[in-house]
Amino acid sequence: MTTHTEHLELALACARQGPARDPNPRVGCVLVDADGQVVARGHHAGAGTPHAEVAALTAAGPRARGTTAYVTLEPCNHHGRTGPCAQALHRAGVAGVVYAVADPTARAAGGAAWLAGQGVRVEQQDHPGAAELVADWARAAVLGRPHVTWKVASTLDGRVAAADGTSRWITSAPARQDGHDLRARVDAIVVGTGTARTDDPALTARGADGTELADQPLRVVVGKSDLAPGARLTSGTTPALQLRTHDPVEVLATLAERGVHSVLLEGGPTLAGAFWAAGCVDELLVYLAPALLGAGPSAVPDLGIATVTDTARLDLVDVARVGPDLRLRLVPLTTPHPHQED
Amino acid sequence: MTTHTEHLELALACARQGPARDPNPRVGCVLVDADGQVVARGHHAGAGTPHAEVAALTAAGPRARGTTAYVTLEPCNHHGRTGPCAQALHRAGVAGVVYAVADPTARAAGGAAWLAGQGVRVEQQDHPGAAELVADWARAAVLGRPHVTWKVASTLDGRVAAADGTSRWITSAPARQDGHDLRARVDAIVVGTGTARTDDPALTARGADGTELADQPLRVVVGKSDLAPGARLTSGTTPALQLRTHDPVEVLATLAERGVHSVLLEGGPTLAGAFWAAGCVDELLVYLAPALLGAGPSAVPDLGIATVTDTARLDLVDVARVGPDLRLRLVPLTTPHPHQED
Repeated sequence: MTTHTEHLELALACARQGPARDPNPRVGCVLVDADGQVVARGHHAGAGTPHAEVAALTAAGPRARGTTAYVTLEPCNHHGRTGPCAQALHRAGVAGVVYAVADPTARAAGGAAWLAGQGVRVEQQDHPGAAELVADWARAAVLGRPHVTWKVASTLDGRVAAADGTSRWITSAPARQDGHDLRARVDAIVVGTGTARTDDPALTARGADGTELADQPLRVVVGKSDLAPGARLTSGTTPALQLRTHDPVEVLATLAERGVHSVLLEGGPTLAGAFWAAGCVDELLVYLAPALLGAGPSAVPDLGIATVTDTARLDLVDVARVGPDLRLRLVPLTTPHPHQED
Repeated sequence: MTTHTEHLELALACARQGPARDPNPRVGCVLVDADGQVVARGHHAGAGTPHAEVAALTAAGPRARGTTAYVTLEPCNHHGRTGPCAQALHRAGVAGVVYAVADPTARAAGGAAWLAGQGVRVEQQDHPGAAELVADWARAAVLGRPHVTWKVASTLDGRVAAADGTSRWITSAPARQDGHDLRARVDAIVVGTGTARTDDPALTARGADGTELADQPLRVVVGKSDLAPGARLTSGTTPALQLRTHDPVEVLATLAERGVHSVLLEGGPTLAGAFWAAGCVDELLVYLAPALLGAGPSAVPDLGIATVTDTARLDLVDVARVGPDLRLRLVPLTTPHPHQED
């Protein structure tokens, strides 16, 4: 392990102290003097609080002069609520900056180049852990909205329920547990009021024994009709958020404001169809049970495709067996009306 | 390579001289004397001709006495058109028998045990090549009818065509070529008259350049209505066989009489549904395109399944990527009305 890596590891440990679900990325910073001694540490504690670099500079005071700053993410170059970190580092007399992840946003990027222009030694060094920590945020930043995964659990012939509407269970217990683990990793789960009414889902992330996992996503219901009194989505520590609109773009904008970077679309073909038509599906996750129903509701709604040359094509990026089932991860190759980034 | 393996290899080379598509398995036999010299060889040249052992014994005459017979398949123990080979070997004074594949049929098995009971040295030695050569025959022998593979090529949502009926092409060129290679390996391809009318398929096994492969399966159309004059199934070196019945059991019995051990079901959901309902589907081969249609005809017909607990379950035995597509091989775990073996 090089010295750089060691210090980036430490910065990463600082970053992890920040809140997991926040509009801003989790970032950590350590200031190291010429003798290799850590002078100060800092992390970003969430939107509206100082950035990690500023937190470390504040802790260091005059001792910041001549140090090297190790930061998990490229220092920002824009005036947000806290002023650009690149300028703050330079002003404090920091002699060098080593960062792991380049800022993917047009608005904030350029911090490294600006610092180099001021005569600061700037170095980028890859660090998988640091990249992983900001992956959801970075993806959303590039998209200009939360990243959307459409989850489907169906038979080989694309059915999500039998002819009589029963659907418990089409996929296996291991596949359903995999789905719960996925819920714990996303910021929000979205269903339509139709699914809320029909299935009365809890939408919590649960373990194999049915108890709730430590990490719970924001539960969101989209649609104009009221939830039934006593619906499981209205109970729990944090009741579900209802968004009274049918516009996916509006849904995602509202969720982005709440710091949501990743959305799991679990509810019904109607909702999924609306997101698909709006170009708001970034990934399709299909749990495929080795089973046939031959009748019953389809997983995929009418997408307005009339002829085979208009088939919606996807790239199959991953195939895994989960218990007796298959899990396919796909990325659309063509979306009919891509949502414009703002 | 042991001496046994060497002699079994030679017997296998003899076996391969027999006809590929025949009611009987391809079998080879070599007689080897105490010095390890090959005294005679024999192979089975097809139904109605002597078995391999008898062919070798005939070639050897009195020199068969004291030899060891190497046979790719356990010598039969029943009176067919040629009398049991086990008795013939014993009568000729053969001192030992080494065979590769045990006879899986109740009617013919027991040859090895009978020979051992007569004081002949009997040894079984596995040989993958010998097993492979009789695999289709053995599978059909155990089933009491040809082995049936139902081939489906669909989108992720189980559609075989778009809303307007167009279907060329849902799967990729590599997947379609894989399908042609499969055609060359089966004894017969079966479609219904509906598919014959709608698609006018050639059902030949073709290479990537469109030319016919050396090995062509029997082409079979099931149903009562006449083929259109000039239909591609009526042309070619051997016109397609039409079976004017809707009963899968009758179809398979007729094909078995013609020496068919393996059937590829390619035609339409109606025909496949009839085979499925009759318990006559042994394997499902699904070429799954990473694509969505959202509308259009389904790959899988109504199977009479009303509720989720009656879902038809299969075992996913193999998953492979073929170009951008997936190929799934599945075996039904439950069939509603298993066809009785005779």
